[in-house]
Amino acid sequence: DIITNLEGFFKPQSSPLQNKTVLVTAGPTQERLDPVRYFTNRSSGKMGYAIAEEAAKRGANVILVSGPTNLQPPANVHFVQVKSANDMYESVMEHYRNVDVVVKSAAVADYRPKLVADQKIKKQPSDWSIEMERTTDILHTLGTEKTHQLLIGFAAESEQVEYYAQDKLRRKNLDMIVANSILQSGAGFEGDTNIVTMFKKDGTSVSLPLMSKQEVASNLLNEIELLLKENVE
Amino acid sequence: DIITNLEGFFKPQSSPLQNKTVLVTAGPTQERLDPVRYFTNRSSGKMGYAIAEEAAKRGANVILVSGPTNLQPPANVHFVQVKSANDMYESVMEHYRNVDVVVKSAAVADYRPKLVADQKIKKQPSDWSIEMERTTDILHTLGTEKTHQLLIGFAAESEQVEYYAQDKLRRKNLDMIVANSILQSGAGFEGDTNIVTMFKKDGTSVSLPLMSKQEVASNLLNEIELLLKENVE
Repeated sequence: DIITNLEGFFKPQSSPLQNKTVLVTAGPTQERLDPVRYFTNRSSGKMGYAIAEEAAKRGANVILVSGPTNLQPPANVHFVQVKSANDMYESVMEHYRNVDVVVKSAAVADYRPKLVADQKIKKQPSDWSIEMERTTDILHTLGTEKTHQLLIGFAAESEQVEYYAQDKLRRKNLDMIVANSILQSGAGFEGDTNIVTMFKKDGTSVSLPLMSKQEVASNLLNEIELLLKENVE
Repeated sequence: DIITNLEGFFKPQSSPLQNKTVLVTAGPTQERLDPVRYFTNRSSGKMGYAIAEEAAKRGANVILVSGPTNLQPPANVHFVQVKSANDMYESVMEHYRNVDVVVKSAAVADYRPKLVADQKIKKQPSDWSIEMERTTDILHTLGTEKTHQLLIGFAAESEQVEYYAQDKLRRKNLDMIVANSILQSGAGFEGDTNIVTMFKKDGTSVSLPLMSKQEVASNLLNEIELLLKENVE
């Protein structure tokens, strides 16, 4: 429509994202217990899909690796559908060497059942203890094997948001972390809005008011553009 | 449209379901572990929604109690949204005394975490053992407290389908059970088709070929109409 065309006309044509390859992960993962039951989490994928869409609009080559969501993949992105944390790990590592920016917005399960049954487990009258093991920490692996990539993580916390976010930024060797409180009204997994603070490696932070996930994506990509410019200088 | 009107015109106006109250349960339940993580299962709710819609078309007063799905509730049904097995139990029991037919197509979680954390549980380097306890068995309770109601259950099995279905029919005091193999191609939770066999209390069984969930719903309601007629005679 006319508005979109005008936006395109006035937008500076020199986004540092142009022709950069951006890998975005989104959504939850599902960790099977048997053919019917699984563990998962409340991530809707909306934040990651909005970031992928906005990065593509700015001229990036976007790879969107997504767990199961109810969303339509945005146009002009290379879409990879995965289910488990292990699927996501393999897909991300396959692409990592060739990407310039990673935005890891997926809520990857950190535990999975130790045993996955081929048949539906019949219920018993008694209690049940499910043994869980850690999945591979994708973000930690990316931080460890980082060469030239900008690495952006997310921290969705229910308490001590800044403390946990800053700690994760350091431990995982990130360039920036996007933190939000999942218990705050208007923020978190399932809604269309978010309230986030972005913490950067150099100690600066940018706090945004309540806004749509599209607007958060746009602000996040502005910060990524700044980081890309700094990297060049 | 014209086709629908013609169908209405040619359909016999004397469905035994007319003005009967039919309670349908549908979808999975979600059992929280903390504000982010939960247990669930692969039920899409499609089978139950199709049954609710078809029952309403035949003139029944339909109450649809549904766990979280991505489906639009059918028109002309009283829709009750629930999340956990316990929510579903309470909603079903609240209506049970005043209904004529119950079709329990929901895939209710039979276990839930013993402890539900108010805050997001932080991951640890080590393994994790999650203690699970049984939820209330809704179908068993309905069978025990049955007075005049027709009670229809479902059995989604990955092996020994007929054995488990017949056993469940007896144990839960059902009038009919709809059995399908979740591992068979074209059958089960997430697709638009199903392959079912209906086993009745009197020993008869009706096996249907692969068909849409709408067609399965129609066949199931035909059998329910027969059972309602028998009850009157």
